[in-house]
Amino acid sequence: LPIERFSGVLAPVITPFDKQLNPDGGRLANHCRWLLSQGAKLAVFGTNSEANSLSVEEKIHLLDTLAEQGIDPRQLMPGTGCCALTDTVRLTRHAVELGCGGVLMLPPFYYKGVADDGLFAFFSEVIQRVGEDRLQIYLYHIPPIAQVPLSLPLVERLVSTYPETVAGIKDSSGDWRNTAALLSQDWDDFRVFCGSESFLLATMQHGGAGCISATANVNPAAIHQLWANWQTDQAETLQQKLDRTRQFFQQFPMIAALKATLSLYANDSEWRRVRPPLLPLSADLLEKLLTGLRELVFDMPRLEEFTAG
Amino acid sequence: LPIERFSGVLAPVITPFDKQLNPDGGRLANHCRWLLSQGAKLAVFGTNSEANSLSVEEKIHLLDTLAEQGIDPRQLMPGTGCCALTDTVRLTRHAVELGCGGVLMLPPFYYKGVADDGLFAFFSEVIQRVGEDRLQIYLYHIPPIAQVPLSLPLVERLVSTYPETVAGIKDSSGDWRNTAALLSQDWDDFRVFCGSESFLLATMQHGGAGCISATANVNPAAIHQLWANWQTDQAETLQQKLDRTRQFFQQFPMIAALKATLSLYANDSEWRRVRPPLLPLSADLLEKLLTGLRELVFDMPRLEEFTAG
Repeated sequence: LPIERFSGVLAPVITPFDKQLNPDGGRLANHCRWLLSQGAKLAVFGTNSEANSLSVEEKIHLLDTLAEQGIDPRQLMPGTGCCALTDTVRLTRHAVELGCGGVLMLPPFYYKGVADDGLFAFFSEVIQRVGEDRLQIYLYHIPPIAQVPLSLPLVERLVSTYPETVAGIKDSSGDWRNTAALLSQDWDDFRVFCGSESFLLATMQHGGAGCISATANVNPAAIHQLWANWQTDQAETLQQKLDRTRQFFQQFPMIAALKATLSLYANDSEWRRVRPPLLPLSADLLEKLLTGLRELVFDMPRLEEFTAG
Repeated sequence: LPIERFSGVLAPVITPFDKQLNPDGGRLANHCRWLLSQGAKLAVFGTNSEANSLSVEEKIHLLDTLAEQGIDPRQLMPGTGCCALTDTVRLTRHAVELGCGGVLMLPPFYYKGVADDGLFAFFSEVIQRVGEDRLQIYLYHIPPIAQVPLSLPLVERLVSTYPETVAGIKDSSGDWRNTAALLSQDWDDFRVFCGSESFLLATMQHGGAGCISATANVNPAAIHQLWANWQTDQAETLQQKLDRTRQFFQQFPMIAALKATLSLYANDSEWRRVRPPLLPLSADLLEKLLTGLRELVFDMPRLEEFTAG
């Protein structure tokens, strides 16, 4: 049977750390279970997961922990793109062997200004070295952070060379014209995800698959509601509500704000930790976040009612 | 005894790959021996070493191979800065345990726009986790590629907090004003290296320690000659000769050009391979390089006479 490709809302799942700054698999599994209960799927090891602050060993261990804790690997789209070919192959192979529904793959991001031929060679080597028919790659285009874009001609060449493997793309360029250009292609069953729910309605209206968005960590049900109802009369209103939530979070350093928010939901200050070079919210920003969360009217969990997991 | 800090000319040693694109420890050791014979020291795992295209395991294995092959670890300044704290700690600790004279440390380079406090926390964690008095860190400032600069206030804070450990900096900003600002500090025994021999004479005249430069892979003796004679009447002439060589190489993609040049020196085409996402020189550029090398008059090894190792 061919593997069903992803659609819907995915959260780049934030990664909890213990007092020694080691990843906390138990809390991560709890958060994953809650996200699934809210209709979101699991893009663990995304940018907002601090994935690039984790070693390959730590990521492999976390994937194994999630599987042991009963998270369905078909709901997992782990980020597996590293700077080094050998790291990317090792982590991708592990994800496939575990039965993950797909992987989200950054280009190698240290060297800048590399040619499309070089990026094509990188992805080709990964696909050939992993050597698994089950491998489903979702390309990860995030030029503001990776500083290595995936051009439309490169994506087209990858899709036409590996149509069974290159399954889709997450466009975190923030540039709607780029997302629209991807959506206007007629590649068979190619799944386009926007990188922010601000573009979710437009993405769905143009034939997209959904979104993979930071704020799905804290607002998954409402984002999923728009995804499920984008063809209804409610859609514009739902999008506007999502936009207000998004704008609220964009006032803060995103990862620290997501973690602080989850620490409020779960009444668990352990969730606030980030790994250097990131910083937790300052006391001032934490207060501003808390006040804002209580004042804002949007479809978020009631703080006093919810405990993650 | 306190560890003597580095000075002189270091090459960010290019990394040879075999047919399977695995690092070739034997050829690397040969090249290191030749560089040492020409007066250069060994900044293995720099940007021009394709270090970020290697896994931590591959780097550890290469370090062990160099030690086994008799390379004096005190001549080694391996690059050990990775995106993940745990990777950086692991590789740095290994380098210290092997007796390396120092390490060259990139900041974590995935997340952009991070605060100096976050970068300080990263370097602090590394220093404390490695927990070795012998650790000598040379900071690696290369904003054009890492896209994460090390500001002067950050460097000052690191030096004043860890004066025994933070031993120097490589400035690959290409901005002489930044190098001059670093050179104008009066930090005790702090070693400033320029990232290109184009700035070598000026760096030495302002109290610097030397340079760590890509082209030291192919032109080490001439660069060392200027370093050793910067106070003599020859200095300006030597600098001008170095500049012409540098300008010649800057017409090409640097890493591929260095490898192609070494393949000519060593009469060994194996040296031409790069790992994706980099590309080897095209046939046209290879021809242009070859022609240029034969026409240029500078102090480079005579091609017909030299075999690496």
